[in-house]
Amino acid sequence: MPQLRRDPVTGRWVIISTDRARRPGDFVRTHVVAKSKGDCPFCAGHEDQTPPEILSYRDQANQWHLRVVPNKFPALRVEGVLDRSGEGLYDRMTGIGAHEVIIESPEHKVSLAQLSEKRVEDLFWAFRDRSLDLKRDERLRYILLFKNHGEPAGASVEHSHSQLIALPVVPIQVQEEIEGGRRYYGFKERCVFCDIVRQEAADGARVILETDEILVVAPYAARFPFETWILPRSHSSHFESAHISLIQSLGWAVRATIRKIERVLEFPSYNFLIHTAPIQEGPLAHYHWHLEIIPRLTRVAGFEWGAGFYINPTPPEESAQFLRDAGL
Amino acid sequence: MPQLRRDPVTGRWVIISTDRARRPGDFVRTHVVAKSKGDCPFCAGHEDQTPPEILSYRDQANQWHLRVVPNKFPALRVEGVLDRSGEGLYDRMTGIGAHEVIIESPEHKVSLAQLSEKRVEDLFWAFRDRSLDLKRDERLRYILLFKNHGEPAGASVEHSHSQLIALPVVPIQVQEEIEGGRRYYGFKERCVFCDIVRQEAADGARVILETDEILVVAPYAARFPFETWILPRSHSSHFESAHISLIQSLGWAVRATIRKIERVLEFPSYNFLIHTAPIQEGPLAHYHWHLEIIPRLTRVAGFEWGAGFYINPTPPEESAQFLRDAGL
Repeated sequence: MPQLRRDPVTGRWVIISTDRARRPGDFVRTHVVAKSKGDCPFCAGHEDQTPPEILSYRDQANQWHLRVVPNKFPALRVEGVLDRSGEGLYDRMTGIGAHEVIIESPEHKVSLAQLSEKRVEDLFWAFRDRSLDLKRDERLRYILLFKNHGEPAGASVEHSHSQLIALPVVPIQVQEEIEGGRRYYGFKERCVFCDIVRQEAADGARVILETDEILVVAPYAARFPFETWILPRSHSSHFESAHISLIQSLGWAVRATIRKIERVLEFPSYNFLIHTAPIQEGPLAHYHWHLEIIPRLTRVAGFEWGAGFYINPTPPEESAQFLRDAGL
Repeated sequence: MPQLRRDPVTGRWVIISTDRARRPGDFVRTHVVAKSKGDCPFCAGHEDQTPPEILSYRDQANQWHLRVVPNKFPALRVEGVLDRSGEGLYDRMTGIGAHEVIIESPEHKVSLAQLSEKRVEDLFWAFRDRSLDLKRDERLRYILLFKNHGEPAGASVEHSHSQLIALPVVPIQVQEEIEGGRRYYGFKERCVFCDIVRQEAADGARVILETDEILVVAPYAARFPFETWILPRSHSSHFESAHISLIQSLGWAVRATIRKIERVLEFPSYNFLIHTAPIQEGPLAHYHWHLEIIPRLTRVAGFEWGAGFYINPTPPEESAQFLRDAGL
């Protein structure tokens, strides 16, 4: 019998279609393997092919191992005035914001999960450093921190990189997640994500990995096969306020989780996105930052787009077990 | 300068990135062309390969030209008891509902837009007939009526068909659209969709097609290139209450619009979905049913998934002009 499950944060219902449970081998995959390429603008030696560097982490010989540069074709721009206006019943504003690329390695052929633990941790330091810097611009209200890995996941450049988009608005799904957290807090006076962490850790059926600071789980109402959430155990609404041991633990956990996903699903495309609170707000008791990883295994059909209603052929308890059992 | 535009119903912001405006030829396309196939369960003569027929429209010789059958691998089932239960902080219910397939033609090679006007109209009669029947089951609260055309849009069977999914819950994006309509109505005492119809018809820049009963437009805050909405001019919240002349006009407009899309974009994959009010509710002054068509031209990247925030490289004024200028 298929089951409907409700995401406790947003209220979104998902069909977990247990009848046609899909195992890792059932998905059509396009393995992501980087080829070496002589003309890649993200490779060491081609630094002049990107816009001027915003940030870099370097070794003692002054060779960079991580670089942040503006996107050459930015969706939004920092320069200009944030101008809001109407057009009859419609609302618009100028496209003020920032769009940056985090180049995760000087080498073309290395994927994020192939980097050392310290190098993966550096990605999250870069996310944090850039967030703290952009937060000072009061026109900006939200920062999206994400990675598209592989072409089916939207990566247009093969060389391993992540992205940052700073926006003058709060995206609607983020607003809804925060609103859902507020409703739960209003009813229980507890953070819903803290409750999820407690229940999942005690239950164990959907746990993939644990550290002292982090819990990695398949969410109860997973929209997609092998959807995975990485949650800090301690309450905190803003990613950019993470302290050193949490960033270290996060880097380790993200690397370990992606390595497990790559082992079980044979190097799929994937996306991850940090869900965090709006940057101009103070600490929120009802919101809890986390990171969501979505392997791109299935086509998303029309009604899922239009309705925000998903059919997931793989119960999260099963995907958790596959990932839990896989080596790092 | 890129522009941020806000959908007046949901409040969703979209980046219209006018700097890198994309014309029809710029998109990578996988042309959808049906091949003939001897073992297709939807073809005439293979009726015994589907579950028993729910509805059919037939000619005087008793040959069907449209058939509705249960999905062989249904996401939800009509049989059983709707049982709601908790699991710690989580909520679930049994997967009660219906999942039906509307086979639009006995012939394998014909696509929806190649059918005659009367045959396309019949698809909407079938949607209406099935909705009115399923509405009597009080466990069901919402009916999704949609089409996935082409494999990238999620179609797993090539033979032209549409689908119906009846749910015991109201999908979250539908709820949000209705809630957005309610907020607007609370402020203005007018339906936001009626206001959109009036403003778009008067402005004309985003209009693609018009009839006495229907307006076809590129929405102001289009999420996707060539996204197209088909709106009845007169207010009505429930699709299934459409009268004969509106169903006729809808059939004509959907056929004409898809033919234009296929001409301009060279037979792309697409989805359409009817947005309508929950079936157990009475008429709503603040909601207005309509149909949304989304050609599948771009990959959707990670942050769009996770944030509900879209970057559209084609301004709707430009896509409207391409479609307006194209023949039927």
